[in-house]
Amino acid sequence: MEEMTVKSNHSSYPIYIGQGLRYQIRAYINKNYTNIFIITDDQVGSRYLEDVLHGFPTEENICHFTIPSGENSKSIEKFYSLQTEALKNGLDRQSLIIALGGGVVGDLAGFVAATFMRGIDYIQVPTTILAHDSSVGGKVAINHHFGKNLIGSFFSPVAVIYDVETLSTLPLHEIRSGYAEIIKEGLIANQKMFLSLLDHSLASIKPQQLEIYLKAGIQVKARIVEQDEKEANIRKFLNLGHTLGHALETIHGYGKITHGEAVANGLLFALHVSELEFQVQLPFYQLYQWLKDNNYPILSISKEEIIELMELMKNDKKSIGGKIQMVLLKEVENPVTVSIENTLMKHYIQTYLERMEKL
Amino acid sequence: MEEMTVKSNHSSYPIYIGQGLRYQIRAYINKNYTNIFIITDDQVGSRYLEDVLHGFPTEENICHFTIPSGENSKSIEKFYSLQTEALKNGLDRQSLIIALGGGVVGDLAGFVAATFMRGIDYIQVPTTILAHDSSVGGKVAINHHFGKNLIGSFFSPVAVIYDVETLSTLPLHEIRSGYAEIIKEGLIANQKMFLSLLDHSLASIKPQQLEIYLKAGIQVKARIVEQDEKEANIRKFLNLGHTLGHALETIHGYGKITHGEAVANGLLFALHVSELEFQVQLPFYQLYQWLKDNNYPILSISKEEIIELMELMKNDKKSIGGKIQMVLLKEVENPVTVSIENTLMKHYIQTYLERMEKL
Ligand SMILES: NC(=O)c1ccc[n+]([C@@H]2O[C@H](COP(=O)([O-])OP(=O)(O)OC[C@H]3O[C@@H](n4cnc5c(N)ncnc54)[C@H](O)[C@@H]3O)[C@@H](O)[C@H]2O)c1
Ligand SMILES: NC(=O)c1ccc[n+]([C@@H]2O[C@H](COP(=O)([O-])OP(=O)(O)OC[C@H]3O[C@@H](n4cnc5c(N)ncnc54)[C@H](O)[C@@H]3O)[C@@H](O)[C@H]2O)c1
Ligand SMILES: [Zn+2]
Ligand SMILES: [Zn+2]
Repeated sequence: MEEMTVKSNHSSYPIYIGQGLRYQIRAYINKNYTNIFIITDDQVGSRYLEDVLHGFPTEENICHFTIPSGENSKSIEKFYSLQTEALKNGLDRQSLIIALGGGVVGDLAGFVAATFMRGIDYIQVPTTILAHDSSVGGKVAINHHFGKNLIGSFFSPVAVIYDVETLSTLPLHEIRSGYAEIIKEGLIANQKMFLSLLDHSLASIKPQQLEIYLKAGIQVKARIVEQDEKEANIRKFLNLGHTLGHALETIHGYGKITHGEAVANGLLFALHVSELEFQVQLPFYQLYQWLKDNNYPILSISKEEIIELMELMKNDKKSIGGKIQMVLLKEVENPVTVSIENTLMKHYIQTYLERMEKL
Repeated sequence: MEEMTVKSNHSSYPIYIGQGLRYQIRAYINKNYTNIFIITDDQVGSRYLEDVLHGFPTEENICHFTIPSGENSKSIEKFYSLQTEALKNGLDRQSLIIALGGGVVGDLAGFVAATFMRGIDYIQVPTTILAHDSSVGGKVAINHHFGKNLIGSFFSPVAVIYDVETLSTLPLHEIRSGYAEIIKEGLIANQKMFLSLLDHSLASIKPQQLEIYLKAGIQVKARIVEQDEKEANIRKFLNLGHTLGHALETIHGYGKITHGEAVANGLLFALHVSELEFQVQLPFYQLYQWLKDNNYPILSISKEEIIELMELMKNDKKSIGGKIQMVLLKEVENPVTVSIENTLMKHYIQTYLERMEKL
């Protein structure tokens, strides 16, 4: 087991990462709570909820609730019914919520914790590779029917307990999804890790090596969040690949492709735009090849979809005053934020599509 | 116009208080926002929205939405539809929400601001006497069908702009409601103000004098909030009269009696319990007389309602581990928090009812 710490303006919390931590969560909780409420989803709950429960003494007031897995659970209705469950189970201000699952459970349960009686403690117990990213940094949210993560808070967990063993049961497309964020972190601030990843096929990566990547990824994320908790400034860099990524997710429908698969396409696009914008050479082809070798879906975009994509990108939370904001790279490890005019953006999308067609 | 400042852990914001401030709100906003979204209710909007709008230059991006007045608007449905309105109006992270109204508008619009794209700036423009209390301190919330203010955040406004002129159109029961909180603040920390108020009938208080009371009340609130933003500790004192008050509100149905009218009854009860618990003499009869003279409803409680009231008091956000928490006074200006056992609480309610019957 290893421990890292995330320091933020008003709080500081530990991240424990290791094998089999789910059996001993109690040991990492150093406060007495009147009630502990575990929130999980059906895929994760069926596999790991019992393991987690067994780690608690019988005298602990513990209750749990299972939501359907998938992005649709990040809804206002699920949010409200979790509040209801919490109240029915007698939670009070001295209670704890545990989010056992991937980013969906983490974002939803975290937002419930942030707003239950104006905020109670919660712990992230991530069970996906992607959740190395979502569980760190205190961003919690649900979706609005106009877009993802539009209703939420900045609310840090009191701890993150990451049992890497749980990752062994992840389906392949979720593995791909998680690695896309690691690729992103490498591009933003860890070229060595990025190059190492491009050298491996996902199928060949051993748990030990994955753990090293996860720690490196968390390090990148934590370092940025510590400097800019509220996303006023450099935290935006973590959005690399996400402007187009989010738009693609919306168009293709959540659940059809994973978040990370969409982001992977967004990363390629960001490299393309960066090359044009700054007249530089970036590892566009190497990334493209690796994504293809590892069976990432490379999404095609029809002429009609271009307008729709641009509208969606304009509605992104990060856009300001109606212009599309994108994170670009001047070089690997050197991200910048750029506002792009409509006509130029259209040009970038078109040249991207042409470039992809030739591959 | 006078200015006070509330300093909290992570923020500091001005409170402007004076006559006619609603015409010049723009002058108190010292930041450029992409969009300004005014939220008000039908009672306030019909009277003051135009005045507020006229104070903004025509080139400002300004939009507004009117909710039905009353506690029922603090619902998850209204919350969500305000998020929808904000998105439709193109609000982004650099936008501002203005809450123009009483505590209902302030709490609801504040919670929308706290969670819209993870939090945007908002300004409180209180228009009730009671809202001198609710607009200061950063507590924002909506109701759950199990109880009041159960879903919310701590999220400070960037400014409070209090136009005392608007108070002239308040209906009588709302005036009574607001003064109950001033009485409360006097009991907690300003005996002089408390005694002065008992010396006046509400009908005889002039705007000038009201403004002085409001400032004194805000002072009490601000001083406490500054020391304990997150209600870990002394902020609970502001809950004087509210344990029974909230329960009475629930039983009698929101809208039947006002918040402050319920709190006024709760204050009487708190004085009664304090006298018994600490064997002291408090201004119970004086307060009772003043409430009667000023036509506060003195609520009777039936035998059957006692159990229900106690259940409600136990479900209060401030209760911990199932025991009823109450704020009591060892003397005026000397509040304490006490946990009270079930049987003792029943005894206190019964002796209170007997005492009231004899009056
Ligand atoms: N808060 C943040 O900073 C942040 C950052 C990135 C992404 N996110 C959010 O995270 C969400 C995506 O997270 P995700 O990719 O973890 O999705 P997810 O939580 O939906 O998990 C993906 C799928 O894998 C299943 N699963 C989870 N753990 C498993 C395990 N150990 N074994 C088998 N199956 C398992 C889940 O049931 C689900 O079907 C999105 O909603 C996104 O908006 C948030
Ligand atoms: N956040 C806090 O710290 C805090 C503290 C105390 C109370 N509250 C909340 O505040 C709410 C009660 O606030 P309130 O008493 O202001 O209620 P309110 O907002 O419902 O206003 C009372 C009534 O007066 C009307 N009104 C408002 N201003 C008017 C004016 N100038 N002229 C004519 N009519 C006017 C309103 O339309 C409404 O019908 C409750 O929901 C309570 O939970 C919050
Ligand atoms: Zn992502
Ligand atoms: Zn009150």
